[in-house]
Amino acid sequence: MGKAFFNQTGLNVRVGLLFGKGSDLISVRDLEKKDFEALFARTQKFEKAVKTGKVRKILDGKVVASLFFEPSTRTRLSSEAAANRLGAKVIGFSGTEGTSVKKGETLADTIEMVDKYADAIFIRHPLDGSARLAAKTAKHPVINCGDGANQHPTQTLLDLYTIRKEFGKIDGLEVAMVGDLKYGRTVHSLALALNNYKAKLRFISHSSLAMPDYVKNELANPFTETPRLDFRGCDVVYVTRIQRERFTDPMEYERVKDVYRIDSAALADAKKSMIVMHPLPRVSEIAPEVDYTPHARYFQQAGNGLFVRMAVLETALTG
Amino acid sequence: MGKAFFNQTGLNVRVGLLFGKGSDLISVRDLEKKDFEALFARTQKFEKAVKTGKVRKILDGKVVASLFFEPSTRTRLSSEAAANRLGAKVIGFSGTEGTSVKKGETLADTIEMVDKYADAIFIRHPLDGSARLAAKTAKHPVINCGDGANQHPTQTLLDLYTIRKEFGKIDGLEVAMVGDLKYGRTVHSLALALNNYKAKLRFISHSSLAMPDYVKNELANPFTETPRLDFRGCDVVYVTRIQRERFTDPMEYERVKDVYRIDSAALADAKKSMIVMHPLPRVSEIAPEVDYTPHARYFQQAGNGLFVRMAVLETALTG
Amino acid sequence: MGKAFFNQTGLNVRVGLLFGKGSDLISVRDLEKKDFEALFARTQKFEKAVKTGKVRKILDGKVVASLFFEPSTRTRLSSEAAANRLGAKVIGFSGTEGTSVKKGETLADTIEMVDKYADAIFIRHPLDGSARLAAKTAKHPVINCGDGANQHPTQTLLDLYTIRKEFGKIDGLEVAMVGDLKYGRTVHSLALALNNYKAKLRFISHSSLAMPDYVKNELANPFTETPRLDFRGCDVVYVTRIQRERFTDPMEYERVKDVYRIDSAALADAKKSMIVMHPLPRVSEIAPEVDYTPHARYFQQAGNGLFVRMAVLETALTG
Repeated sequence: MGKAFFNQTGLNVRVGLLFGKGSDLISVRDLEKKDFEALFARTQKFEKAVKTGKVRKILDGKVVASLFFEPSTRTRLSSEAAANRLGAKVIGFSGTEGTSVKKGETLADTIEMVDKYADAIFIRHPLDGSARLAAKTAKHPVINCGDGANQHPTQTLLDLYTIRKEFGKIDGLEVAMVGDLKYGRTVHSLALALNNYKAKLRFISHSSLAMPDYVKNELANPFTETPRLDFRGCDVVYVTRIQRERFTDPMEYERVKDVYRIDSAALADAKKSMIVMHPLPRVSEIAPEVDYTPHARYFQQAGNGLFVRMAVLETALTG
Repeated sequence: MGKAFFNQTGLNVRVGLLFGKGSDLISVRDLEKKDFEALFARTQKFEKAVKTGKVRKILDGKVVASLFFEPSTRTRLSSEAAANRLGAKVIGFSGTEGTSVKKGETLADTIEMVDKYADAIFIRHPLDGSARLAAKTAKHPVINCGDGANQHPTQTLLDLYTIRKEFGKIDGLEVAMVGDLKYGRTVHSLALALNNYKAKLRFISHSSLAMPDYVKNELANPFTETPRLDFRGCDVVYVTRIQRERFTDPMEYERVKDVYRIDSAALADAKKSMIVMHPLPRVSEIAPEVDYTPHARYFQQAGNGLFVRMAVLETALTG
Repeated sequence: MGKAFFNQTGLNVRVGLLFGKGSDLISVRDLEKKDFEALFARTQKFEKAVKTGKVRKILDGKVVASLFFEPSTRTRLSSEAAANRLGAKVIGFSGTEGTSVKKGETLADTIEMVDKYADAIFIRHPLDGSARLAAKTAKHPVINCGDGANQHPTQTLLDLYTIRKEFGKIDGLEVAMVGDLKYGRTVHSLALALNNYKAKLRFISHSSLAMPDYVKNELANPFTETPRLDFRGCDVVYVTRIQRERFTDPMEYERVKDVYRIDSAALADAKKSMIVMHPLPRVSEIAPEVDYTPHARYFQQAGNGLFVRMAVLETALTG
């Protein structure tokens, strides 16, 4: 468990929360700070319950649809495990092979159908805005598990929860983001979600992969930008994968990729308490040796996905 | 819930029923009117139970195999949700990738195996007659979820249930069938199942897609045939998809497809109480605007698939 | 149930067992005779419980990951049914389509993740040694469901259990192995596992598919080798598939395949009590007519996979 406990009253003071029983979760922009804090309190409760083997089957008898129109092992398995641990059962698919989508069915029609079989819907879909469309169609709660390059709110929640639990707070921390800041959905969402807290941001990237203006223009926190892989003063380093397909010149990719690789040397000057995060899967952007340093938090971060999704699902179904 | 309640005694008077504990469901031809009525009574019971969140876990501890040798989202998800809602758990596959079928195993051998792991089997298979073969091999109940162009009895049951619930009866209704009446498995089965009731049938199609003689020769009810999309006097319109691959001339397909498309104009002269049904997925044969008319029943129809499959599964496993 | 009961005290005398609560099951080489006997006693308990519908949900609330990186219907479905029947729920995948493996994630990283969502892991993977690696990475028990050409210990357990149950003993039996003894993983493991008992072995194969020296060198039991399909004196015949791709000359394959095909004629001189086993799926190496002889045991053998996997899973999770 983290260094501090969340305010447990968050569980009771649900008046005025945007996210509650019957809510969809489509974007972190739909949430306010008090929603974050209420969800984090509940997440920590579930973390404790799972680790002590004492999860109550609050969703016994419920059926949750897990509709993954494109690959995602981590999000799918943790979402399904979250439903299962709460006592719900899961129907669904991963990939559109073997689905009516192949026969030309619209997303809205697919959702109309599934909404009649299930009590809540997890959806991942390659098109931006698809989750919002699904939420408009469905009567039951829809949890966005990633709609193209747009939003992946449970990822952002688990990212914030990981920081929050580690330091007992978010205010006052300096958070560096490294790698592909131009196309990386997770770092865009995290930077914006940090608007709810008083943090400092440091964007570390090659100039061709810099944080876009449309994100920077919305930031409430002070930020700096640098191409230098320097973590001095940072409390959190959030690493993202640099994808080969973003580069027209393969040589340029190889060079940039190696510059922003995190290894022991890159961590030499870091604070002892600094944590390294990554949405995973990683390929080569974090050296395996980092796993054995006290900085590594990416596996715990992935593990937190289970607890966060339990909190989101319980809240959407029971308030 | 529908306009009328089914005779609840159907649940008790199970003497003389063809479909009961241990039965397979392979074809609607295996069922008599009293079987339909008993299943519909049970279906309505489950519809109420699901909608009020009061489903008893009658199949707790049971394992149901869901063997989909070819794609079917709607039937698969509603069958699995039916098993789950009754407390059973589900094993299986959708598509033969990753199965021993790929290694050349016969269907009979696959069924011999699965029959040892599960208490009941849902099967969809591309070959006509495959479900009957599976039923002969398995000791546990086999529910046919579509065997090629042959039978899909739970679809026919949910079609009839949708009509039965809507009008409180089937006798005396006029049911139009539109689109591809030549190859459409669902309309063949529905027309034959209506032999158990006193209905009138209207077959609306292009001459090249007319209802085949081998179906018409078995009909107990009076029917008319017409190429004109005219719904006057009809109580039910059952729409099916016209498939491009049925036509050698693509231009002919485009013309026919548009003639039999259901939109607001096509519904102008219809009875106010007339309902439009479709087995789904639809592509373009029903305009989206129809969804917002009081005639649309295809989504409720799909939803009824859950309740019908709960009734079928419970009956096969517990009588 | 078999002709004899296993010593029920095996369930209580767990002192000194290698396989218990928290154990991985990676290879039958990790087990001693007392482990086999303890597992078989538990397997028989579950066989009785399933057949009388009286399985206690010992693993209620647990989540089991079923990670099949390559196809396997029988092992996957029986493993998932085993988890389900014990009350656990299952997450996972079959095939790497739609998984983060496709994005280049290492097996160790995938396991690190899944280990945080599940209480136990079933893994099948095409690479030799992958299951051992997974076990080293995971904190929770890992059950090897086949790692390439290497090990498939639950298969060997169910093979031995089938013999043990049939004859009430293994000591004193003569076990013939037929077909592809060179590449067949199951016969290698079975021959080695029989080191724990006093049996006689007969290896029947074409010279090009003979039992390898590295297996024979480790055998504790006497064995004979012959190309002749002669079962006189045998108690058990274990048949394996001869795969076309092992032969450079297709004509040679056709000839060998037919010589080692088991049909009624091949069984003419067999003991009445002799049983024919096969890991399945079969293609043509056992004629369908054999299914109707009193010798056929391959379907029961496959069925025993359920009970063995229940015993293994329960032991690994509860001791």
